[in-house]
Amino acid sequence: MTRGEQIGSTSSAHDGGSVVLGLDVGGSSVKHLLAPARSSTDAPPAPRARGRHATPKDSPVDGLAAIVSSLRGDTELERVVLSIPGLVDEAEGVVVRSTNIPSLDGRPLGAQLADELGIPVDVINDGHAAAVAEASWGAGSGIDDVFVLALGTGIAGAHVVDGRVVPGAHGSAGELGHITIEPSGRVCSCGRRGCLETIIGAPALRRAWAEAGGTGGPEVLLAASADGDATAAAIVERASAALAEAILTLCALVDPGCIVIGGGLAQAPHRLVRLAERYVGERASFHRVPPIVPATLGEWAGANGAVLTALRRQRALARS
Amino acid sequence: MTRGEQIGSTSSAHDGGSVVLGLDVGGSSVKHLLAPARSSTDAPPAPRARGRHATPKDSPVDGLAAIVSSLRGDTELERVVLSIPGLVDEAEGVVVRSTNIPSLDGRPLGAQLADELGIPVDVINDGHAAAVAEASWGAGSGIDDVFVLALGTGIAGAHVVDGRVVPGAHGSAGELGHITIEPSGRVCSCGRRGCLETIIGAPALRRAWAEAGGTGGPEVLLAASADGDATAAAIVERASAALAEAILTLCALVDPGCIVIGGGLAQAPHRLVRLAERYVGERASFHRVPPIVPATLGEWAGANGAVLTALRRQRALARS
Repeated sequence: MTRGEQIGSTSSAHDGGSVVLGLDVGGSSVKHLLAPARSSTDAPPAPRARGRHATPKDSPVDGLAAIVSSLRGDTELERVVLSIPGLVDEAEGVVVRSTNIPSLDGRPLGAQLADELGIPVDVINDGHAAAVAEASWGAGSGIDDVFVLALGTGIAGAHVVDGRVVPGAHGSAGELGHITIEPSGRVCSCGRRGCLETIIGAPALRRAWAEAGGTGGPEVLLAASADGDATAAAIVERASAALAEAILTLCALVDPGCIVIGGGLAQAPHRLVRLAERYVGERASFHRVPPIVPATLGEWAGANGAVLTALRRQRALARS
Repeated sequence: MTRGEQIGSTSSAHDGGSVVLGLDVGGSSVKHLLAPARSSTDAPPAPRARGRHATPKDSPVDGLAAIVSSLRGDTELERVVLSIPGLVDEAEGVVVRSTNIPSLDGRPLGAQLADELGIPVDVINDGHAAAVAEASWGAGSGIDDVFVLALGTGIAGAHVVDGRVVPGAHGSAGELGHITIEPSGRVCSCGRRGCLETIIGAPALRRAWAEAGGTGGPEVLLAASADGDATAAAIVERASAALAEAILTLCALVDPGCIVIGGGLAQAPHRLVRLAERYVGERASFHRVPPIVPATLGEWAGANGAVLTALRRQRALARS
């Protein structure tokens, strides 16, 4: 599978001129976004091309190099940044542990692709990529201190200050999904009890809905709740209240100036996020409650974050 | 009350040479620390003088200016940094809301003192001051990503990355004392239920000890626990377990590379902190548990942080 579109006045990625490439490597597809290398970082650049490819799971280095080569043409490609699901040593370009692509585990992907392609290649965590994009070019644009939360199967976030993720000492800050909400609650996938993810992740909502006799996934649950189904509404209210408690802990510890919520569960109907916002307002005490807003870049956040990172690194190079 | 000591080979603060002054303004006393303005920031400088004065509560600007003048003599004083308890707008030098000195509330203390003294004066939060000092010169020295926790009447912390506090959008990050530990627990001073401070602050320990029939404050409780009193030990164990839960939340959200614990309750006997460390180790799942160590600068942490801030700002000026 490869689908691409050429965008913008120049109509082709193959017409020369320096570009940078962002690749958002997901479990099933790789999205690409090609942008002029001298774009401003203040706003999303007009992309030169974007598209989608099947993820090369078996031989990822060769497969990713082939994708880059097919996009490169006679363009002067200056830098590639890959957004990867999992724990990434960004300084070394090593995928420490990938979430969906086991063949990447432990691989010095940055160095291997750089050797193959003859240009600099950086590797960043996909959550960090999406977070810097939402904070700089998306819903958090114009605010210096933003927490970007992805609400899906898992629940993770990243604190972005002045456009940069505050990663923590081991690159694993932002695990909002494992804040304890119910000390005697259900056992979580992490082994502890009552984590936020046991109440509001997609699997938790699916289970609660099934236990209440509902059929279908979280989307059906959310739709039923919006339609006035009392059972569904009770599940959604409990999940939103749990999210609100986690957000209050976040405000106490991190004090963000804006909370951006993205990911599958945050999409329309936005009831879950709107309810959480209401509960946060009602339950706050000393907390400085920031605006809580939906993400705006959707599934292109990761690719945008990869492009933004590439643009910034090229600018830093040019200055040094 | 004014007590001072002259320290170091030059024996006097009044022998000329550029200096910077750190003032740690507390509810009852002001500590001063005078250091050579060209000191390295890599390690605590040999102070030129240090001492203690009564806090001028009624006319704080005149009183603080008088303290500075008495220390200044014929020395070339380049900059003063004040560490103040309460919420501070550090960019503007304004005390938004002070904890113990109501006459400072809303005052543009930095600008007023600078006018009075004719040199730059900065105002920083006392918790931030102590945290940067512990992270850079104290127990966190050599580690890039440190969370410094003060365990006393209240429980607050600060995340220090590369020697700088990550303050949050409103300067109020680090409120570990208001993480919910027992959702149906006691009502906290903040109005919510079951915050960490309802279990482990000095007032909470005093109350638990009194309710169990004990007499005396938290120090007596901790001593009784160390002596094998089963009732005291149970209170200390519950408090340590609550602290451990809060630290696990901190590790999930912030992922520090080291946790430094200071404040009255962290002093010897260190049983409470040692127990918390053990519980954190036992209860962690995916968390990257960092070293948990006692603070080393004691009651001089704030004054050291003020001096460190002054040295850094003078270096930044010299470079610009």
